[in-house]
Amino acid sequence: MDIKFCTQCGGSVQQTIPHPDNHARYICSQCGFIHYQNPNVVTGCLVHKNDKVLLCKRSIEPRHGLWTVPAGFMENGESTRVAAQRETTEEAGANINIKDLFVLANLTHANQVYMLYRAELIDDNFQPGHESSDVKLFDQDQIPWDNIAFYTVKLALEKFFSDYPKGQFSLHEIDF
Amino acid sequence: MDIKFCTQCGGSVQQTIPHPDNHARYICSQCGFIHYQNPNVVTGCLVHKNDKVLLCKRSIEPRHGLWTVPAGFMENGESTRVAAQRETTEEAGANINIKDLFVLANLTHANQVYMLYRAELIDDNFQPGHESSDVKLFDQDQIPWDNIAFYTVKLALEKFFSDYPKGQFSLHEIDF
Repeated sequence: MDIKFCTQCGGSVQQTIPHPDNHARYICSQCGFIHYQNPNVVTGCLVHKNDKVLLCKRSIEPRHGLWTVPAGFMENGESTRVAAQRETTEEAGANINIKDLFVLANLTHANQVYMLYRAELIDDNFQPGHESSDVKLFDQDQIPWDNIAFYTVKLALEKFFSDYPKGQFSLHEIDF
Repeated sequence: MDIKFCTQCGGSVQQTIPHPDNHARYICSQCGFIHYQNPNVVTGCLVHKNDKVLLCKRSIEPRHGLWTVPAGFMENGESTRVAAQRETTEEAGANINIKDLFVLANLTHANQVYMLYRAELIDDNFQPGHESSDVKLFDQDQIPWDNIAFYTVKLALEKFFSDYPKGQFSLHEIDF
């Protein structure tokens, strides 16, 4: 995202490397304020009931109409776990027990760190929130594999179905 | 961090909740641009040689003169692992083998997600970078426990010395 004006004084900014830094930053030519830009964290849950996983059909762009796990941008003041819980409530209306961190994916091209927790579904009272048009539990062979919204989510689902029969889930770190 | 002017048009911004959001955002009153603010990721390494850990004495604020592990803000375009490696090179000049993610700490009051990898020191060629005045290997009982720069780092060191005798390291998730 380009920055054209200073957030502090409204002056024009220029991209230069400030001493003793080694990265170009947007610096205000008027007040000298440095505008750092850093990756964002996306958190969510791979929710399952035994060997069935909960997917949401997206009713917003990008990837409208495709299926994904409940996940979204972490907000200031939240922990990764609290953010993952909030996204699951907002997008799938699901009651869950969050377990361990299951996927840590680095989407360097998008400047995103993707953190998915494994979560167990407590009951069957789930329903789509305002960003989903449908929420369903899927067996492995029922999953709409060709209509998964994000490649990271497809990989996370594959890791789940690979770990599940072992009865043990490990943290999967995936770099793109 | 307050935002007073729009990064896109220089117009004045106001904090309001845009529909259908539920968080207050800085929105430009002129062009409508929404300035999202999200937590930052701090990555680094808990570097060790057998049961000795590598600490850096900070030569910058905050916590000038206190000891810490090499860590810092993740940059756009990096993975968490690459960022942890870079920070270790920059601050400790150390050659390392990065192993698994060891600490995930949520500093919600600071809007930071702290991710520390365990890393094994390859050789003894380490030296302070421009943010450190000293780098040393410490036995558990030599560690300057009262002069550790950050509480999260103190906890991470305690977790290391608790896990080390077991010969097994697990991921420690710490929320503040």
